[in-house]
Amino acid sequence: MSIELIGINGIPLVKKGDNISKLIIEALNNQDISLKNEDILLIAETLISKAEGNIFKLSNFIPSDESIAIAQKSGKDPKLVEAIIQESNEVIEVGSNFVITETKHGFVCANSGIDESNVDEGFATPMPENADKSANEIREFLENKYDLELGVIITDTQGRAFRNGAVGVAIGCSGINPLWSRVGETDLYGRELQTTEVAIGDELAAAASLLMGQANEGIPVVIIRGFKNFENLRNSYCGISPLLRVKEFDVFRK
Amino acid sequence: MSIELIGINGIPLVKKGDNISKLIIEALNNQDISLKNEDILLIAETLISKAEGNIFKLSNFIPSDESIAIAQKSGKDPKLVEAIIQESNEVIEVGSNFVITETKHGFVCANSGIDESNVDEGFATPMPENADKSANEIREFLENKYDLELGVIITDTQGRAFRNGAVGVAIGCSGINPLWSRVGETDLYGRELQTTEVAIGDELAAAASLLMGQANEGIPVVIIRGFKNFENLRNSYCGISPLLRVKEFDVFRK
Repeated sequence: MSIELIGINGIPLVKKGDNISKLIIEALNNQDISLKNEDILLIAETLISKAEGNIFKLSNFIPSDESIAIAQKSGKDPKLVEAIIQESNEVIEVGSNFVITETKHGFVCANSGIDESNVDEGFATPMPENADKSANEIREFLENKYDLELGVIITDTQGRAFRNGAVGVAIGCSGINPLWSRVGETDLYGRELQTTEVAIGDELAAAASLLMGQANEGIPVVIIRGFKNFENLRNSYCGISPLLRVKEFDVFRK
Repeated sequence: MSIELIGINGIPLVKKGDNISKLIIEALNNQDISLKNEDILLIAETLISKAEGNIFKLSNFIPSDESIAIAQKSGKDPKLVEAIIQESNEVIEVGSNFVITETKHGFVCANSGIDESNVDEGFATPMPENADKSANEIREFLENKYDLELGVIITDTQGRAFRNGAVGVAIGCSGINPLWSRVGETDLYGRELQTTEVAIGDELAAAASLLMGQANEGIPVVIIRGFKNFENLRNSYCGISPLLRVKEFDVFRK
């Protein structure tokens, strides 16, 4: 039993209006890679934000009093903090050099997921507007072209509450349910499982991150081939929401 | 650029005193798999705990007043709660059907990592006593036998603060630094990276979990082959501690 992770490079720096599906097809052709049935494509979110033209010029933001106060507490640029606030539903925690929010999409993460890497100085990219929709468009384009069943997951790199270091996580999803419910299944002794929900979408994103890196690797797309539960988790419509813990069930917000 | 995940099955139910290294070698031989230089072996913690004979009979625990109170609040068995407390440094959060602690090893997780799956009724397995030491023994045994440089990571499955579903994480490590520091590296635009620490150990564990599953898959060992940063992260002595966020830097404990 094995799984293969295949890194796709040779995708040029993406500009507003670029069709990501077509860029992926071109890169696959250049590397002489054919997609197979049940392949899952993991795509770095920065590709999506750039193709959407979703890039902030930080000097355009006018900090509110709240943003100025948070900037003072965190040591961050007030204009960046204003952008973080505008991208958030709620500020959860502020401290030296960090601002943790719930983003308008519902993710709890640092800086509302705004990224200053891999863009020109003075600019930053927010998270994609609707990563589920982007994932779905790419999946449908590729499925129609190749007549295959595929999964597409948009990935980001985020920190965790209780462990050091960032990991790849899923922020958009199409074609596969990112949460695997195993309620009713049994262990090797025939007892009901204790861990009944597995965040497959995040495990796939973390695996892809081993190839993507976060610097100048130039591998923004990874194919995961041979994941045997694809068929069980096949779902064209569910999106990322199964992975989002709603606030009522969140025990760590102060 | 690609990475291969290879599942090792055919490892029998482990008993106290079993030599995990020898069981792995036997399973590799049965599957006709040869280890290669820079392979990383991911091993499910349940193998280690069982080989250590580290299994609790829950009826042996006599609940303290604290355990009885936490049992009432959580709805959990008071004897199980007593075991959870004895395995912990600190109780962090209690609610309906959950008890989150910092374990005596320093992990923040549910139930001090005590697992009631894959053992007989009335029994439970704690986390391995010293998963770094176990990882190191296995690494040295296999490296000496095959004259290779290897990594060994002991894995568990744990929930997260802000996202639904459990994921594979690293709880013991030898031969490779589980935290990748990228301070001083630059992005595609030559700017210093924003995400400077990547939890490679956890990403490897999450990837392995895609094959291991948590039920009756019977794949407790996964080889990860082709991780190109092995050499950069080669470190025989560091263990898991780089991934543990010490309490002073933890902003979510109440």
